[in-house]
Amino acid sequence: MLGAIEAGGTKFVCAVGDEKGNIEERIQIPTTVPAETMPKVVEFFNKYSVKAIGIGSFGPIDVNMDSHSYGNITSTPKTAWKDYPFVQALKEAFSVPIGFNTDVNAAALGEATFGAAKGLDSCLYITVGTGIGAGAIVQGKLLQGLSHPEMGHILVRRHPNDEFQGKCPYHHDCLEGLAAGPAIEARWGAKGNQLVDRVEVWDMEGYYIAQALMQYILILSPKKIILGGGVMNQKQVFISVYKYLQEFLNEYVVLPELADYIVSPGLGDNAGITGSLMLAHQAFQEEN
Amino acid sequence: MLGAIEAGGTKFVCAVGDEKGNIEERIQIPTTVPAETMPKVVEFFNKYSVKAIGIGSFGPIDVNMDSHSYGNITSTPKTAWKDYPFVQALKEAFSVPIGFNTDVNAAALGEATFGAAKGLDSCLYITVGTGIGAGAIVQGKLLQGLSHPEMGHILVRRHPNDEFQGKCPYHHDCLEGLAAGPAIEARWGAKGNQLVDRVEVWDMEGYYIAQALMQYILILSPKKIILGGGVMNQKQVFISVYKYLQEFLNEYVVLPELADYIVSPGLGDNAGITGSLMLAHQAFQEEN
Repeated sequence: MLGAIEAGGTKFVCAVGDEKGNIEERIQIPTTVPAETMPKVVEFFNKYSVKAIGIGSFGPIDVNMDSHSYGNITSTPKTAWKDYPFVQALKEAFSVPIGFNTDVNAAALGEATFGAAKGLDSCLYITVGTGIGAGAIVQGKLLQGLSHPEMGHILVRRHPNDEFQGKCPYHHDCLEGLAAGPAIEARWGAKGNQLVDRVEVWDMEGYYIAQALMQYILILSPKKIILGGGVMNQKQVFISVYKYLQEFLNEYVVLPELADYIVSPGLGDNAGITGSLMLAHQAFQEEN
Repeated sequence: MLGAIEAGGTKFVCAVGDEKGNIEERIQIPTTVPAETMPKVVEFFNKYSVKAIGIGSFGPIDVNMDSHSYGNITSTPKTAWKDYPFVQALKEAFSVPIGFNTDVNAAALGEATFGAAKGLDSCLYITVGTGIGAGAIVQGKLLQGLSHPEMGHILVRRHPNDEFQGKCPYHHDCLEGLAAGPAIEARWGAKGNQLVDRVEVWDMEGYYIAQALMQYILILSPKKIILGGGVMNQKQVFISVYKYLQEFLNEYVVLPELADYIVSPGLGDNAGITGSLMLAHQAFQEEN
């Protein structure tokens, strides 16, 4: 039996399951402070005999195994979790192999193993919600270099009708600053689910996401792109994304039919927790 | 003995050498039309007994081994080379393993093996010259997905003082359209080497390249960035790149000292041909 943690900024999902992606049991725990959240995590896994645990975590995190702070959450604005030694804490509680990566890299792994990119050695998973993040599989492996990707903060050109200043505390009007859920709410004065009929809202959203996809495609050339997260539940955004991406790329690269190439998660909301199970599976295999 | 071809838009460099990057002999052949250029290539390699040949080619090219047009140059504006079956032509002449990738991916491989990124499993090589292109090593392998990267055509935000329309036939004012050599010449009315003292020229150039690097870093997180090509011989561009990259990223990601992180090619003009030798070495190993 394998354990999995999808550690999000508002809630932790903990689950047990197997390497085929079957989830046997799961709970949700609010993300408050480590001293409160983590004992509940340990209590959950104490009920089972897990041979490894995989973590897909909010970030930024240290994924560099040669680093002295490997396994930590690093410079998060959630101050109680800043520099929290996530892997070390679990190692001390369970003495089993621990897999550790970003929540979005975990979701990419889940989708590449059992979801919309099943069987492919290359895919990109993007979530557009409270923030914007992306993970990727490149030639069969989770993308990693100096650190994990931070694709949500790439620069985009402003839509000609957009005068909103942007909400990113670091870059103001980067992709996340202009196109994540809080930016939509701040720009238009209402939450997305109250703006369903406002065509201009979702047209502009697609304009920004299409720009991001253009950059991702030209740089990574993924074999499949999966767009998840709360904002993408507005399916009209996909239509706008297809339109603008075609306009921006102008046939410069040959792509599959866009409706087959840029899709919703095959695992729905289970991409992250399923990918975290796979991180557990990989960690177990690497240490055995 | 290994053979290597650096196939550029204006000239082919052919060389023979070994897997340690030693080049024993080399020639240059003008890139005219295949019926003229290729017999000279074959004539050169006929003088030696090469056990494999590596090609780093101008593009776009088909690098997908499952494709029926694998090994071809595809939709190049150089019409005589459009759909030219580069790998097949060499296979027919020499019956040895042929490695095939983009010129910039070859250069990245050369730099990662013997140059500025020696010993690293991750680097990015960018050339800024007649065009802008980039290749990358990700976790020890040349970056490839659906196809090879086309990083020179990413979108950038305009410099506030730049009213030049851009020179890219596909995207007008993408990175290549605004920052490659021909764009510099068209915007300022003189070639780069006549503009050495014009501070504003190189400041603007750095502004665009820094934006591109920001996107590449957030998406790929390379362990080393190598900036080559004719335009980068103006070393003042590096200063501008460091300044703007710091401003744009605003300490969002932790990077090494920029002067150590973003550097000139360790192999100088030999990055591409050396990497092509390594492509030959890899092709030989894969088939033996």
